[in-house]
Amino acid sequence: MNYDDAMRSAIAQADGVKGTTYPNPPVGAVILDRDGHIAGVGATQPAGGPHAEVVALRRAGERALGGTAVVTLEPCNHHGRTPPCVDALVAAGVATVVYAVADPNPIAAGGAKRLTNAGISVEVGVLAEDVAGGALREWLHRQRTGRPHVTWKFASSVDGRSAAADGSSQWITSEAARADVHRLRAVADAIVVGTGTVFADDPTLTARLPDGSLADRQPLRVVVGERDISQDARVLNDDSRTMVIRTRDPHEVIRALSDRTAVLLEGGPTLAGAFLRAGVVDRILAYVAPILLGGPIAAVDDVGVASIVAAQRWRYDGILRLGPDLRMSLVPASSA
Amino acid sequence: MNYDDAMRSAIAQADGVKGTTYPNPPVGAVILDRDGHIAGVGATQPAGGPHAEVVALRRAGERALGGTAVVTLEPCNHHGRTPPCVDALVAAGVATVVYAVADPNPIAAGGAKRLTNAGISVEVGVLAEDVAGGALREWLHRQRTGRPHVTWKFASSVDGRSAAADGSSQWITSEAARADVHRLRAVADAIVVGTGTVFADDPTLTARLPDGSLADRQPLRVVVGERDISQDARVLNDDSRTMVIRTRDPHEVIRALSDRTAVLLEGGPTLAGAFLRAGVVDRILAYVAPILLGGPIAAVDDVGVASIVAAQRWRYDGILRLGPDLRMSLVPASSA
Repeated sequence: MNYDDAMRSAIAQADGVKGTTYPNPPVGAVILDRDGHIAGVGATQPAGGPHAEVVALRRAGERALGGTAVVTLEPCNHHGRTPPCVDALVAAGVATVVYAVADPNPIAAGGAKRLTNAGISVEVGVLAEDVAGGALREWLHRQRTGRPHVTWKFASSVDGRSAAADGSSQWITSEAARADVHRLRAVADAIVVGTGTVFADDPTLTARLPDGSLADRQPLRVVVGERDISQDARVLNDDSRTMVIRTRDPHEVIRALSDRTAVLLEGGPTLAGAFLRAGVVDRILAYVAPILLGGPIAAVDDVGVASIVAAQRWRYDGILRLGPDLRMSLVPASSA
Repeated sequence: MNYDDAMRSAIAQADGVKGTTYPNPPVGAVILDRDGHIAGVGATQPAGGPHAEVVALRRAGERALGGTAVVTLEPCNHHGRTPPCVDALVAAGVATVVYAVADPNPIAAGGAKRLTNAGISVEVGVLAEDVAGGALREWLHRQRTGRPHVTWKFASSVDGRSAAADGSSQWITSEAARADVHRLRAVADAIVVGTGTVFADDPTLTARLPDGSLADRQPLRVVVGERDISQDARVLNDDSRTMVIRTRDPHEVIRALSDRTAVLLEGGPTLAGAFLRAGVVDRILAYVAPILLGGPIAAVDDVGVASIVAAQRWRYDGILRLGPDLRMSLVPASSA
């Protein structure tokens, strides 16, 4: 198996544990034996448990000797709640370590150097974009900026409407697109909506499986705004915890969620506009159905743009077909 | 060369003559010799000139004997201004004829049967979707319905705005997207706008090459509406002909253009809405820039939808990256 294919397996491992590894990053690892066959795979276990490399090495056993470790993130070099992964790799006798993305954390970094010093070949950057834009996206953002990563998710028609003229919006997008949103919620740390959305749609804001049952892991639900919501609002039910933040200031919301990594903004046009004007959105996920609605209800209202020269500039970093719908991922144009 | 690759060459031939073959369809043909090597290629010449098969056969000469003709459309079987293409294929001694799409025209059709009767093998449907959705799209629509094919083209931000709050819109999309629109205009028979667009933007509505010069072929410019436009409006300049239709009824516009094949609707939100409500749009081409604008100016206003259950339902039939922008092609959901 070549490094790209092995890295794809490692990515699949990481995707499988995303949302369960806090405060550690969701990492995947694959051990190839001397002949390039898969000897073991692994992913980061919940806090206190072994990291991905250690899981994969245990599964590989003696077949790791002289083999190759393929990891999504640079192996860590520090004693946290578990010993450094680089020690385990050296002890197992692997000949080569291949990883996608360097560790931006100054405490954990330095793994590559330790490995090289121990006589192990190191190759960096394999499928780096896939990894940095995938399971590690939010964790890397947090490491680099110290802030949670905010994804604004919206569903709209091709003409940019989030509801028909009478306010009806269930459902703009297909089952396939809605299932994708539920997967997104299940790996988010918090979902943020405004009181307007609670009044208009009374959502439960839970992550659900395709059969309608609750996913194992539920994000914190966050309601933002200065109006009182009803004690009967579904967002206050027992399916998950809920935080009510009595402000309209996105910066205050970010501060209140400063210990989180992945924040999903599902606000309506007013709250989304406030976050966009404040410049605190790191990714846009637009689920665009092949329908036309027209009318007055847009997915976002005022984004602080008066003239075309002042347009908010983003960049497509992924286009996905989801059943009949399209999912566009955008990141700020200034980002690498 | 296999049939798919040969058909791709034939498609490229057809694309090259689109817009120049009225009233004939833009067809491409490739002749493969006995060994499967390209012996000749050709495309439909302007009215009165030879059809694609004949051009390709002339180039192939004796190498056509025992070879294969690969054609985007079923070879014609009638005496128009030129003799039937099937006669030329039989005379040239080809062993096999491969085509993508059957001729829906009852007068020209029957080519396949004539060929089979002459002992020639016939294979149908190679890359049929690519051909039917490509150069032949508008011509096939006209053959099937008797009406011109109407494409509504618009440029917008990800949030569905066609201009910023102050009305500025130059340029929402990139040079790459605008060049694509000029290619579209160069192969259209007519471009339709409303008087509102003439007042707001004073466009010339010409097809231009990347260097800014006029393309060889210019579509008819059509201005629709009940208001008088200025005699100084650019749309009335000498770059092409212009038709002014004093109506707001899309059906009247279609009737006035009933002898055309490819109509490009570039109207603003009001005219586009009228065409969509009237159900006379056959394709949507949305050029979506990775920007946010917000504000009150949407690409379309009222499309006649009061509630989500009455949404206008379309289907993506092609997504294309154009520089930083995205081009989405949509066709009615009810279409095959």
